[in-house]
Amino acid sequence: MQGLPESLQKLIDQLTVFPGIGRKTAQRLGFHVLKMSDEEIRSLAQALIDTSEKIDQCSVCGNITEQDPCDICTDPKREQSLICVVEDAMDAIALEKTGQFRGLYHVLGGMLSPLDGIGPDDLNIDSLVDRIDDQVAEVILATNPSVEGETTAHYLTKLLKPRGIKVSRLASGVPVGSDMEYIDEATLSRALEGRVNL
Amino acid sequence: MQGLPESLQKLIDQLTVFPGIGRKTAQRLGFHVLKMSDEEIRSLAQALIDTSEKIDQCSVCGNITEQDPCDICTDPKREQSLICVVEDAMDAIALEKTGQFRGLYHVLGGMLSPLDGIGPDDLNIDSLVDRIDDQVAEVILATNPSVEGETTAHYLTKLLKPRGIKVSRLASGVPVGSDMEYIDEATLSRALEGRVNL
Repeated sequence: MQGLPESLQKLIDQLTVFPGIGRKTAQRLGFHVLKMSDEEIRSLAQALIDTSEKIDQCSVCGNITEQDPCDICTDPKREQSLICVVEDAMDAIALEKTGQFRGLYHVLGGMLSPLDGIGPDDLNIDSLVDRIDDQVAEVILATNPSVEGETTAHYLTKLLKPRGIKVSRLASGVPVGSDMEYIDEATLSRALEGRVNL
Repeated sequence: MQGLPESLQKLIDQLTVFPGIGRKTAQRLGFHVLKMSDEEIRSLAQALIDTSEKIDQCSVCGNITEQDPCDICTDPKREQSLICVVEDAMDAIALEKTGQFRGLYHVLGGMLSPLDGIGPDDLNIDSLVDRIDDQVAEVILATNPSVEGETTAHYLTKLLKPRGIKVSRLASGVPVGSDMEYIDEATLSRALEGRVNL
């Protein structure tokens, strides 16, 4: 069998490293590159390099940013008394999209996971504790409703509560627009526990 | 709402141009780039540029190649009397993977599609006709079993038959491993028509 041209094969191999991109998808993407103009390809290659060179972690909140500290940390209009703790930058973006949260963020950069060898020292937890001063009234724990997320929330609660601040957790329950019939037992149990008086 | 860092947003916008990559997938890929090492990113950017610079069309068969003519056209072990006509390079690769075909290829670069304004002059048809000499005994039409593919096969048959060569078409029928129950009527009709005596 005659294979693909070497340069195309190399590109396809590198594309399979991305999450959710299998061999077939990588091949489809690789062939699409052949149809792109030189300019489009150079621009994409430059965008890759720019992203890697320009983006860094905010030294205050751990979020991704092009200038340190980030836009949110330096925005005087954000509520300085409220810190929302998330696992990664994508979670902060999801919350920003709601338009409901006007406080600050703290990005942990992962979840506690003893099985994977991820302990408190591997996450931005020290920098969170350092941020807790008289200005901060409440920390909202917005970690995932998974085992690791719950473990991390539990750990942070024990760490932060003694400092005399309010520590809260995102409500867990039935997702909007879902069908009761298809919701798993754990979620329904949570929704029952957390029922709201009308 | 605070958005993504500009360089990351730019990268994500460019990734959505790829087929099958929506906004969410592009975001996931973009965030993965942040986790890659500088070396990995430079290597990926280089692979993109290499693919665009090094790969060209074979002047004989129209397939993609790094040297002209391509490996298959210059391989003396391939049967020079047999040409298999395909829509694009990916189809040729699919056939190569079977290990069954030892002839040459001809890549049309598309299908006839009057509705989209694609006529014979837009495809590598002239170069196919030019290749038909005394050495060629048979042309296998391996265009897709779609309306455009059938139209193209019909057009090529009318063009090539008068030249006194055998023109054949890939068999159409039930795919191996499929379930009779779920096969569409058109495919079953074809399978009946083309039934083989045992």
